Amino acid sequence: MTVQGYDPRTGEPVGAGIAETTDLPSLLDAAAAAFPAFRSTPPSVRADFLTLLADRLDAAAGELVPLATAESGLPSARLTGEVARTSAQLRLFARVVSEGDYLEAIIEEADPGATPPRPPLRRWLEPVGPVLVYAASNFPFAFSVLGGDTASALAAGAPVLVKAHGSHPALSAATAALASRAAADAGLPPGVFGIVFGDEQGVRALRDPRVKACGFTGSTGGGRFLLGVANSRPEPIPFFGELGSINPAVVTPAAVAARAEELVSGFVGSFTLGTGQFCTKPGLLFLPAGHGLGPALSTAVAAASPGPLLNARIADQFETGLAGLASHPGVVASAAGSPAPSEGSWASPRLFTTTTGALRADPDGLTAEHFGPAALIVEYTGADDLLAALGAVEGSLTATVHAEPGDDFPLPELLEVLGDRAGRVVYNGWPTGVAVSFAMNHGGPWPSTTNSAHTSVGATSIRRWLRPVSFQSVPDELLPPALQAANPWGIPQRRP
Amino acid sequence: MTVQGYDPRTGEPVGAGIAETTDLPSLLDAAAAAFPAFRSTPPSVRADFLTLLADRLDAAAGELVPLATAESGLPSARLTGEVARTSAQLRLFARVVSEGDYLEAIIEEADPGATPPRPPLRRWLEPVGPVLVYAASNFPFAFSVLGGDTASALAAGAPVLVKAHGSHPALSAATAALASRAAADAGLPPGVFGIVFGDEQGVRALRDPRVKACGFTGSTGGGRFLLGVANSRPEPIPFFGELGSINPAVVTPAAVAARAEELVSGFVGSFTLGTGQFCTKPGLLFLPAGHGLGPALSTAVAAASPGPLLNARIADQFETGLAGLASHPGVVASAAGSPAPSEGSWASPRLFTTTTGALRADPDGLTAEHFGPAALIVEYTGADDLLAALGAVEGSLTATVHAEPGDDFPLPELLEVLGDRAGRVVYNGWPTGVAVSFAMNHGGPWPSTTNSAHTSVGATSIRRWLRPVSFQSVPDELLPPALQAANPWGIPQRRP
Repeated sequence: MTVQGYDPRTGEPVGAGIAETTDLPSLLDAAAAAFPAFRSTPPSVRADFLTLLADRLDAAAGELVPLATAESGLPSARLTGEVARTSAQLRLFARVVSEGDYLEAIIEEADPGATPPRPPLRRWLEPVGPVLVYAASNFPFAFSVLGGDTASALAAGAPVLVKAHGSHPALSAATAALASRAAADAGLPPGVFGIVFGDEQGVRALRDPRVKACGFTGSTGGGRFLLGVANSRPEPIPFFGELGSINPAVVTPAAVAARAEELVSGFVGSFTLGTGQFCTKPGLLFLPAGHGLGPALSTAVAAASPGPLLNARIADQFETGLAGLASHPGVVASAAGSPAPSEGSWASPRLFTTTTGALRADPDGLTAEHFGPAALIVEYTGADDLLAALGAVEGSLTATVHAEPGDDFPLPELLEVLGDRAGRVVYNGWPTGVAVSFAMNHGGPWPSTTNSAHTSVGATSIRRWLRPVSFQSVPDELLPPALQAANPWGIPQRRP
Repeated sequence: MTVQGYDPRTGEPVGAGIAETTDLPSLLDAAAAAFPAFRSTPPSVRADFLTLLADRLDAAAGELVPLATAESGLPSARLTGEVARTSAQLRLFARVVSEGDYLEAIIEEADPGATPPRPPLRRWLEPVGPVLVYAASNFPFAFSVLGGDTASALAAGAPVLVKAHGSHPALSAATAALASRAAADAGLPPGVFGIVFGDEQGVRALRDPRVKACGFTGSTGGGRFLLGVANSRPEPIPFFGELGSINPAVVTPAAVAARAEELVSGFVGSFTLGTGQFCTKPGLLFLPAGHGLGPALSTAVAAASPGPLLNARIADQFETGLAGLASHPGVVASAAGSPAPSEGSWASPRLFTTTTGALRADPDGLTAEHFGPAALIVEYTGADDLLAALGAVEGSLTATVHAEPGDDFPLPELLEVLGDRAGRVVYNGWPTGVAVSFAMNHGGPWPSTTNSAHTSVGATSIRRWLRPVSFQSVPDELLPPALQAANPWGIPQRRP
């Protein structure tokens, strides 16, 4: 059995395919065997390893980007930028590890007079054990083999087993080979990094007792299934799934009046970016009734080019979903881009329009994510009508508002509702850009993630792979270095 | 239908019982309605409310402790101490809220040169929404209506609905009335605190979309069932269950030689404390073969008094479990306390002995928790034998080691194994005492908890009821106060 990638621009196979994994038990053994040594490495060793991975990835861009282009259909310029983003992400985690804040070390001396009496206690965060990472299709670098889940887990000191995405197996194999060479060159045990090909092998890995946590980026259906697998193990494990997201965006009447042209071009650019295959694509745009942007939107959408979707399954689901939307009694198909080529899995941008009344009457039907270059305009009649309609929209990664200085719209109420529905609130921008930084949050209420308490992008995403351990009255020389009085790692030790 | 408490010392009913909840929807409505106002309260308001609850609880101790004694059979002195612990816990969270570290506020300015470019981002943690708290039976104050889960959730700004434990309904109703009066006196909406009586009503509440997270302390079976309920909702929610724990303790040969008498009295005191109904009871004691402590252990156990178990179900399960242990071919029943009275649900301390070989041959049979005053001595033949046997013990809240200065036992390896199996490592002490502080961790690998990434005791337990939200390019006046440049709450704002 092989995992075969196809060029979505032509439908032709890319290479001969990658053999499905047949030695899963030995990969799991290696990950489990690597854990004790890897977790004990000082921060500098892991930081150097992450930096080495970043350097090697940058150096291999010329070799990897053409593979990625062939298997994803994404343009070479975009993928080159994605490599830079991915190596920057690895370097951010090198910094996170070096700074050591993430260990949340707390040192408490004894207090015999406390209620109840307190012995000396020292707490920090330890890695949970080997982590399984399900790679995504839509970012073949940034959310795949050496993407954010892998970078943050390695930073934490957790060996990583990647389940390769079936849409870019050749790129995954090449990236994994690079990672394994870097691990060897860094003097780390080989089980620090491994890769699994094949859907059944991925599920087997998730069920294996050696795997202690799982990260996933993909569809709501797939994520819900794997969440069930993780929780029905004899020993349930944490599952961090980033699933579908509709990402509502709201424009106030004042913003329409002030910035019509910029809003139209920004919105169409955002929902068609990467052929609409961003998890932060604004899928719903709330405009005030009588906005008058219809002609400009139609023109902009008509001018937007068709693009290839990542694979034939996504293309089928996109067309099926849009057919349902087009035949919905409360929806008008209001704009389309030029027709897509018939070979491969191309899709044309599409725009639909509905009202808050129709949305509230059928929220499941009208707020479902359509993965691809499509969006739905929702016309509202006032602030109360808008707020009520937003209450019917499911949880998202992002929620956006466009407003003006001195806007008479009730913005505090609007931001509170949006903050309840999403993990990131964007003001006068578009949500498709996701910075990789300390204050980024890429996570939100169900169904955008399975666990809204965590982010899958940015420095704090490392918290997913850690668990606290306290040491009570343990002599200094037996404590982990991070908790010793001499603080040999030089990390922040909080003394409350 | 009523929920009826019984005096476990006599088996007689206590009072006329408390009516099962019939107005659950209105309780849930009230919690949901209270959320927007409660989440927006400044830290000082929530700190004052927690302090008021602490003061009122202390003032009511004279009224509540007799109820607790009648319904739990626990001695009045222990329950009086538990009230002080519970009010200290409420006051700790008043401090946590005031200090504001827990909000994890991060302020990042724009960096257009970053890869990818970074807009201004501000991140903090917001409460998830109304929280359902399943109270435990074994700590009628500290892990019940106003216990740690309730205190930490209120501190976070989350309304709390307590599912009362059926073993102390009258105490639960009295404590809840106190809490509701305090909320009213503090000027908070009534839905900030509510209580539910009846098991079916509890499960209905857990399934309700208005509930956004759940805390639970109880049995492994009950916790696993409720975890499944939480995850099979249309919108799954985080479930933090503290379940059973076997809490292995290890004594090195050097410690046996140095401190035989102290070890025997300390161990028997710890495993019989509160009639053995602590979640941190040391259920397994690993002693070197030939330890020679047998006679002293028998004497100490024989001298330990019988005590009432919390209810008839626990008493039945305890006797059934011990009958299984006594008939196990690898186990010797080695000591028992004086016979228990036949009325009510009394239990006598019991001690059993086995070997590492028997334990490794049947880990499920020999490492199961017996909730009550029983423990199992496991005799090991050397460090390698011990480490291998510890690898067969499931996850625990605590793991303990007794050693000596200059001990020739491989302590670093031992502590590493124990830290893998438990959330708190205790050195030369016993695990039954649980300090309420910043560095405490009360959580561990499955099955001791459903989520080892969190503690249910201590300052950091507040993290369970929070989720991050980032604000991108949002004008200062529209940000939450914690993220504004003027920092009106005076909380730590990290600027990486």
